[in-house]
Order: sequence, then structure tokens, then C-alpha cells
Amino acid sequence: MTRETPSAPLLRADSADPATTIPDRSEIGGFALHHQLSDDTLEMGRLALSRLLLMNDATYPWLILVPERPAVREIFELQPADRLLLMEEVALVSRALDEIFEPDKLNVAAIGNVVPQLHVHIVARFRSDPVWPAPVWGRTPPYPYTVLAAEKIRGQLRERLSEALVDNR
Amino acid sequence: MTRETPSAPLLRADSADPATTIPDRSEIGGFALHHQLSDDTLEMGRLALSRLLLMNDATYPWLILVPERPAVREIFELQPADRLLLMEEVALVSRALDEIFEPDKLNVAAIGNVVPQLHVHIVARFRSDPVWPAPVWGRTPPYPYTVLAAEKIRGQLRERLSEALVDNR
Repeated sequence: MTRETPSAPLLRADSADPATTIPDRSEIGGFALHHQLSDDTLEMGRLALSRLLLMNDATYPWLILVPERPAVREIFELQPADRLLLMEEVALVSRALDEIFEPDKLNVAAIGNVVPQLHVHIVARFRSDPVWPAPVWGRTPPYPYTVLAAEKIRGQLRERLSEALVDNR
Repeated sequence: MTRETPSAPLLRADSADPATTIPDRSEIGGFALHHQLSDDTLEMGRLALSRLLLMNDATYPWLILVPERPAVREIFELQPADRLLLMEEVALVSRALDEIFEPDKLNVAAIGNVVPQLHVHIVARFRSDPVWPAPVWGRTPPYPYTVLAAEKIRGQLRERLSEALVDNR
């Protein structure tokens, strides 16, 4: 991976533009993405239940699903139908990551000790990655994506998840 | 928690006794619990899909679900019906842990970088625990349960999960 000047802020500004972001969050029952998740990630799209985010850390292919439900911290607090939807979205996104990156293992986790909004990490792990076999959380400082690299992943995800993605426009 | 002499080996020998353990593993399609999971845990029972294990580490209330399906490493490799069952078992066991221990947060994770058999950790976390807010994996040496402490948890789980537990006898 080339180490170009990080240009994620450009993407950030773009995705925070009211004209291109999700227009009306009140439509989804008062859900608003926690600021820490917003700060640490790049938005890749929306699925039926969850916001799909790319952790802005090029060290690992690392996606995050955030069910668009207000005031939920734990999986068991989701309504049963939402839980099943979450499982299907986890499987769908896991399979996409697996196909795109061909990792040695996927790590799927709802931790949330720091950010009090339910979110599920899906991380593609390689025996050659910096902290294998340890979990990734809190181990290495984030290495922000270049616009080019982030757009490439967005394209790969859109190709594989097109039927499941809700159009934001 | 009192720090008595660890007596988990007694429980171990007991649960490994062919007369009291699951009689015929071939009945469940060739599934056999990975030796590392067997070594590190105490069996608490079986649910419709998963073996329910208690991590033999009294530092955290820490359960593990292992879907009784052979040769599965990733959630997305499970059949769709099994995935939904797994989600329901995760929710059920999470709620039981939450009621019994009243933790500050639950951590739910399928990591599996070391043990190549799909297993889902459900860990009750407290702000006062030794590594909060970091994840628990690989942080502190395991502190084995006494027989008394493990039996107490088994009783609490059986009380809350009785309808979901498959009788092993």
C-alpha cells in the first residue's frame, strides 16, 4: 500500500455535506450516528437496517455496521426482527469483505465499551497484519485512507452489495 | 470473589466422563468441540444450535457459544437458518448474563484467530474490571473457577435458560 498524503478530510467534508448525506434522520425514528463513529469512519452506504461505515484506518479492511435504531447499546435490546436483519447484514458484509480481500480470518464483534451506540465491527485479518493474532482494538494508531484508496473500496463494496444497498439520493 | 484453591479440574474430569457428557457426537453431523475450547472452558449445557461453555476464568463472567456444526469457521459459512438461530442464542444468553451479573456492557465477538472453529464470546464487562475498556482477549492470565463458583453460575444459567437448554441426560 502506498503511503500518500492522507486526504480523508476531503471525503469527510463531502459526506458531511447536507446535500449529499442522508436528508432526514428523523425519518428513521430519531437515530443519529454517534459523533465518535462519525469522526472515525467514512460512510459507505446504508443497508435495510444498518449504516455501513469504513473505519478510517487503512491498516486493516475494517467495516462497521450501525443499526439505525435510537438508544440501543446491546444486541439483545434490538427487536427480534431487527436482530435477524442484523445477522443477515453481518453475513452479507462479511462475505463481501471475504471475497474482496481474501483474508485469513474475519473478526466480528460488538464491543462498545467506549461508544454507547450499538455497532458491529467486521474486520478482515491477515496473518501478516501488525497485531495478528491479537484483536485490533486499541493496538495501532489509525492510518487514514487516501481518497483514492477509500473510493476503490467503496466501489468494490457497491459492486458486491448493490442489491442490498439503499440508495441515498 | 473469594480466592479459594482452584478446583476446576474436578469439574473437568466430571464433564469429560462418558456417562455424563453428550453420548454420541456423530449424531450431530461429525461436530466435535475443538480441544482448545474444551481445555479452556466448563460445559454449561446445550442449546438448539450451540454448545454453551463457561470460560474457565473467574476474572470476567464469560460465556462461549459454539454452533454444533462441523468445519465452520465464519458466521457467513453457517446455513441461513443456523445463522438466525445463532443470533437468537446470542440474544438469549446475553440477556441471561445481563440479568445475572448486571454488567456495564456486554462484549459479543467471533474472533477465532487462534482456534479454527466458529465460537462466539459473550463477556460481561464492568468499569471496575482489570482491563476496562480494552477487550479481554490476551490481557490477563485466566483465573480458574472453584467448583462452588462454577456450580453457582451453572445454576443461575439453568434457571434462566431452562426452556432453551437441551437436556444432556
